[in-house]
Amino acid sequence: MTTFLLVLDLLGTFVFALSGASAGVKSRLDLFGVLVLSFVAGNFGGITRDIMIGAVPPAAISDWRYLGVSLLAGVATFLWFTRIDRVQSAVLLFDAGGLALFAVSGASKALAFGLNPIAAALLGMLTGIGGGMVRDVLVAEIPTVLRADLYAVAALAGAAVVVAGNLLHLPSGAAAIAGAALCFGLRLTAIRRGWQLPVASPSEKDDQR
Amino acid sequence: MTTFLLVLDLLGTFVFALSGASAGVKSRLDLFGVLVLSFVAGNFGGITRDIMIGAVPPAAISDWRYLGVSLLAGVATFLWFTRIDRVQSAVLLFDAGGLALFAVSGASKALAFGLNPIAAALLGMLTGIGGGMVRDVLVAEIPTVLRADLYAVAALAGAAVVVAGNLLHLPSGAAAIAGAALCFGLRLTAIRRGWQLPVASPSEKDDQR
Amino acid sequence: MTTFLLVLDLLGTFVFALSGASAGVKSRLDLFGVLVLSFVAGNFGGITRDIMIGAVPPAAISDWRYLGVSLLAGVATFLWFTRIDRVQSAVLLFDAGGLALFAVSGASKALAFGLNPIAAALLGMLTGIGGGMVRDVLVAEIPTVLRADLYAVAALAGAAVVVAGNLLHLPSGAAAIAGAALCFGLRLTAIRRGWQLPVASPSEKDDQR
Repeated sequence: MTTFLLVLDLLGTFVFALSGASAGVKSRLDLFGVLVLSFVAGNFGGITRDIMIGAVPPAAISDWRYLGVSLLAGVATFLWFTRIDRVQSAVLLFDAGGLALFAVSGASKALAFGLNPIAAALLGMLTGIGGGMVRDVLVAEIPTVLRADLYAVAALAGAAVVVAGNLLHLPSGAAAIAGAALCFGLRLTAIRRGWQLPVASPSEKDDQR
Repeated sequence: MTTFLLVLDLLGTFVFALSGASAGVKSRLDLFGVLVLSFVAGNFGGITRDIMIGAVPPAAISDWRYLGVSLLAGVATFLWFTRIDRVQSAVLLFDAGGLALFAVSGASKALAFGLNPIAAALLGMLTGIGGGMVRDVLVAEIPTVLRADLYAVAALAGAAVVVAGNLLHLPSGAAAIAGAALCFGLRLTAIRRGWQLPVASPSEKDDQR
Repeated sequence: MTTFLLVLDLLGTFVFALSGASAGVKSRLDLFGVLVLSFVAGNFGGITRDIMIGAVPPAAISDWRYLGVSLLAGVATFLWFTRIDRVQSAVLLFDAGGLALFAVSGASKALAFGLNPIAAALLGMLTGIGGGMVRDVLVAEIPTVLRADLYAVAALAGAAVVVAGNLLHLPSGAAAIAGAALCFGLRLTAIRRGWQLPVASPSEKDDQR
């Protein structure tokens, strides 16, 4: 399970780093700016999770592979950005993938450190949304998680599946895959169908109700 | 005292979550964006405080009531925003209330964890200003704490009262209420009277001095 | 060594606080806004480092001298901003100095807490870039570290010298001075010569390749 968790975590780091690097290229940052944004987007969520559960120093700092996959994603995006960009909605795809992988790895690691089920689901969600949130703040945009269709909810759903699987003593690998698939599917469907929740509009409400 | 501290903390979370939700509605976020902003504004300060004093996992993660009051504040604001908005300067009021409650609960919890008096006062201030700071950063605004009349100073004053009360062995409940009242009063008076500190203006200085 | 580390850390705090205060004055904040920005810019990197290595409460909270030098830098900048501003590129100089000092003190402290060499170099880099990153985010700008010539690389180089010195059992003071000098020199030369890395430009690439 530890190896499984590590693979999930590194994969999540890689795809979030891809989304960070793409955002950096779009903001016309130079190579090192792109690499910094890759690292921050890929590892901020995991670092926050590790600090919150008391696993210090965080894996992203003490294990060089996190740095490695982040730089790899950054350099790859920088070199082949045209190709990656052509795949329509590449950033959204990477972002959704990272969200799903981190929601699941976050919840799993929290359970492994003895947090209660609600805390584990919540921490999974925060791990998932953390990287994208700080990526957007650094390029001075309002984070996707605040604007987008079912973003945090998809992460929470994925994390909840992992927690439920743990409570029901299901195999943790199966629960993780199911949770990640649910989160990824929910997020992609929300993007494709344009699912959006109601927006409270103070002025219009006055007129219409 | 633990119960008293918990009530202070939950109340602070609730009013800061109200300010976060109001800011979210103003930025025309959808329901889940509003809820995320409620949670972050309500709990960022407390989570930072808990991490800094080594109380991990932070109460806001391990105790479901923090999530509960945050969501309650978010949903309530979303549903009744017109009404809440009509109360003039509602966001400012909630923000001032949260500032006062967190400054006091932050300092109290830091003392309970054995920090020295100056550290406790400083941590109370940081706990108070943290939530509003990240709320404003997320909606891409320069934080109120950097712009506003006596914001951080009011928080520091409230926290200092708690620390002074502790040094003088006064009842902690009374000190907390006095500190919160002082912080809230200072902040509201500063808003009402437009108290503002001098602004250094490089170009004008050149002309006038 | 502990005293040496403390002096490095306080010096770094001071010069980063100067850069924060200068940015605050430029954004026309009032005195307390400037002081808050001084404290945050001067101490965010160190607080993050201490949290990551498990040294809680962070030195910047538990040791009043960090608050002291931050406020000193803030008040000095506020009062004599015209003079400081006249020194061309003062903010850049302070920022480069803080970067160098924190990269070195961050790596040294991480080694003292038993982190492995790669983790120590990485943490030194993060400690160096943290303060300036949050300073820029708070005044709603894209952080220098993402835009500027050799910023993170200079910090990494400085931290790497400290780590290499430790591996080779060189005197830690000499390694720290060499590392700081290298980082500062690299950063200043990059600014002066306008060294910049290539920028990937998705649209132009399509046309030109």
